[in-house]
Amino acid sequence: MDLKYVMENLRIYDKMLMNIAKKEGIREQKLEKRIKDGSVVLVKNSNRNIEPLAIGEGVHTKINANIGTSPGLVDVDYELEKAKIAVRYKADTLMDLSIGGDLNEIRTRILKETDVPLGTVPIYDAFIEQRIDMDIDSILRVIERQCEQGVDFMTIHAGITQDMIKGMKERIIPITSRGGSFILAWMIKNQRENPLYEHFDLVLDVVKEHEVVISLGDALRPAATEDATDTLQIQELINLGKLTKMARKEGVGIIIEGPGHVPLNQIKANVILEKKICDNAPFYVLGPLVTDIAVGYDHISGAIGGALAAMYGADFLCYVTPAEHLGLPSIEDVREGVIASKIAAHAADMIKLGDTTRDLDMSNARKELNWHQMFELSIDVDMKTKYSNLIDKKACTMCGEYCALKIVEEYLRN
Amino acid sequence: MDLKYVMENLRIYDKMLMNIAKKEGIREQKLEKRIKDGSVVLVKNSNRNIEPLAIGEGVHTKINANIGTSPGLVDVDYELEKAKIAVRYKADTLMDLSIGGDLNEIRTRILKETDVPLGTVPIYDAFIEQRIDMDIDSILRVIERQCEQGVDFMTIHAGITQDMIKGMKERIIPITSRGGSFILAWMIKNQRENPLYEHFDLVLDVVKEHEVVISLGDALRPAATEDATDTLQIQELINLGKLTKMARKEGVGIIIEGPGHVPLNQIKANVILEKKICDNAPFYVLGPLVTDIAVGYDHISGAIGGALAAMYGADFLCYVTPAEHLGLPSIEDVREGVIASKIAAHAADMIKLGDTTRDLDMSNARKELNWHQMFELSIDVDMKTKYSNLIDKKACTMCGEYCALKIVEEYLRN
Repeated sequence: MDLKYVMENLRIYDKMLMNIAKKEGIREQKLEKRIKDGSVVLVKNSNRNIEPLAIGEGVHTKINANIGTSPGLVDVDYELEKAKIAVRYKADTLMDLSIGGDLNEIRTRILKETDVPLGTVPIYDAFIEQRIDMDIDSILRVIERQCEQGVDFMTIHAGITQDMIKGMKERIIPITSRGGSFILAWMIKNQRENPLYEHFDLVLDVVKEHEVVISLGDALRPAATEDATDTLQIQELINLGKLTKMARKEGVGIIIEGPGHVPLNQIKANVILEKKICDNAPFYVLGPLVTDIAVGYDHISGAIGGALAAMYGADFLCYVTPAEHLGLPSIEDVREGVIASKIAAHAADMIKLGDTTRDLDMSNARKELNWHQMFELSIDVDMKTKYSNLIDKKACTMCGEYCALKIVEEYLRN
Repeated sequence: MDLKYVMENLRIYDKMLMNIAKKEGIREQKLEKRIKDGSVVLVKNSNRNIEPLAIGEGVHTKINANIGTSPGLVDVDYELEKAKIAVRYKADTLMDLSIGGDLNEIRTRILKETDVPLGTVPIYDAFIEQRIDMDIDSILRVIERQCEQGVDFMTIHAGITQDMIKGMKERIIPITSRGGSFILAWMIKNQRENPLYEHFDLVLDVVKEHEVVISLGDALRPAATEDATDTLQIQELINLGKLTKMARKEGVGIIIEGPGHVPLNQIKANVILEKKICDNAPFYVLGPLVTDIAVGYDHISGAIGGALAAMYGADFLCYVTPAEHLGLPSIEDVREGVIASKIAAHAADMIKLGDTTRDLDMSNARKELNWHQMFELSIDVDMKTKYSNLIDKKACTMCGEYCALKIVEEYLRN
């Protein structure tokens, strides 16, 4: 090997580490240690020209926005618009969950037109192309194709196994994971073990080459608070723990996907369990939703659960939009979903990382009734445009002349 | 005294208790015990013909919606519309915080046209009428007038005292409570003790006669997460604890108002402190907001804090609308604020009261893709109208033919 080439690569790696450490407010040495032990993963396909994203312990809680077509609604431009809105509102990653139209075209366009890590669920393509006739080879071909296209992380539902099928009938909702249901349908129909579980070594071989991170999917994530933290969910988590060990031996980055619908008082246990069973692999939760009845407002239910989960150690929040349980989100749904998740992630980072500077600055701006500064610091990047009428005011319509801040400023000054 | 009259009243009281116990799913005996020890209060002015509302330990978490005019925007019909929307979306109480226009007219109209308990802040009227020249007599006159009008509960800022003023300069935001700032301005200007603290016995005399509940206001509730749980806040809470003891001796129901802006990891301590220091008086929190930067989306920040607070024992959540920190809420803001608080309250009641029937029914309806039933059970009473296009569908636009529920139903059936 060319020593100069190795040295040059080391230099690039060091510089990248330094940049991330600076951005995340973590010491470089600590970051490097965590990347090595797998508690932090760097998300970036080696083919792709984007900034790598650090997800895991001691760095900021990241949030993901799902986009993608459905069989009944294929409008690639619209999905791209959603992607761009999500990034504008500071989603850290995107997942393309398209299941309608030309999936390769959609994916490559998103990869080209956005600059945040992109995740996918390769089993979608495999199932849509071949349904029940898919096999490990065709699945691996899809994974390889997507690696080559530049996908940065992939959900692989490798944890569900034959021994879990029987217990599913006892659940209120047996399964809600779409990718999980594709694999499950195959397993039942073919009476065979989950090919992604059996041949996980082959999956690792493919993704390793492209430095693609595997997000181990939880096919059995609860879809009802009643089903949360049940035996099936934990059995699958135990499998994910085994697969994590395999992946780490091969140097493949692993993220663990988690629930789902979880009552408030079970969230902490879910985070502790994941961290313990999966050797501190970054935890990526969907919500969690703390009630089942908030249909139309699940971004709020998800923000409640997400804030708690992240405070207890979850590292990556998948957004939930107001359209969850109803249909494909609109652009406005995407925007609201991203903002709700950002609030949850930030509220948790205030605790986890002591990241309170922005809150302090906001409070100071608020005391001074400095709208310009407040909008600069706000979670919504477009506040300034929306509330331009406030910018020059020294009060708001809530209190007018009876503004507590103003009254007291006057009296306390003397 | 006429024995027949006494017996008749006892009968009415027993029937009322029975009705509340049934509605709240609590044993009658337990409810009665808690009303006696003050851990539950019944909110209803003796002059008013509405159902009394139980707030406190072991009953459902209640939510309040604030409405009211501002000096710059006096539209009584609009405020009434807000009141009605709030009640339609299941706010348990309303507070009229009007500070613009004819305050008596607004109040009496709300009392006449709605049927949930109404709260007010009498110091608003007293200060607006007389400013710095108000005194305990004029304040008591306002309280009495409002008692006679039928107001069911009143915020009384009796906890802030002269010894706290000095420390306020050390806060990021000294004060945000509007009523608190009126009292404080008076205290500084007149160099005298808080008249509501000094003459709390007189306040009790007035409200007692009308069975009006006092909501002890926290003038020093933190307005910045940085100021949360500080010495001033706790000093005031200690005063509120003393006043609670006084009120209980007189048989006056007490609710304690609480923060405000509180980081996620201080919420539990705040609830424990209040319950301990104020002898389990019902705790009424505003939010709490878990970050300062969610301006425009504080209903989400408040739902996160409210769910946590209620799970730990807070009994009454004051809603926060998206307009918080920006101005007077619109009707749509009111609707969103109520729904966000209802989600928080319900998520907590699932834990506190084991109140999960509706979630279970929703999950079953979801499994069956029964939209009609889902919308019936939803937190939003108008879902059916908004999503009428879904009612007869057996899937949603998210997944279409690739619906996990449908795929698995098919395979698991065999």
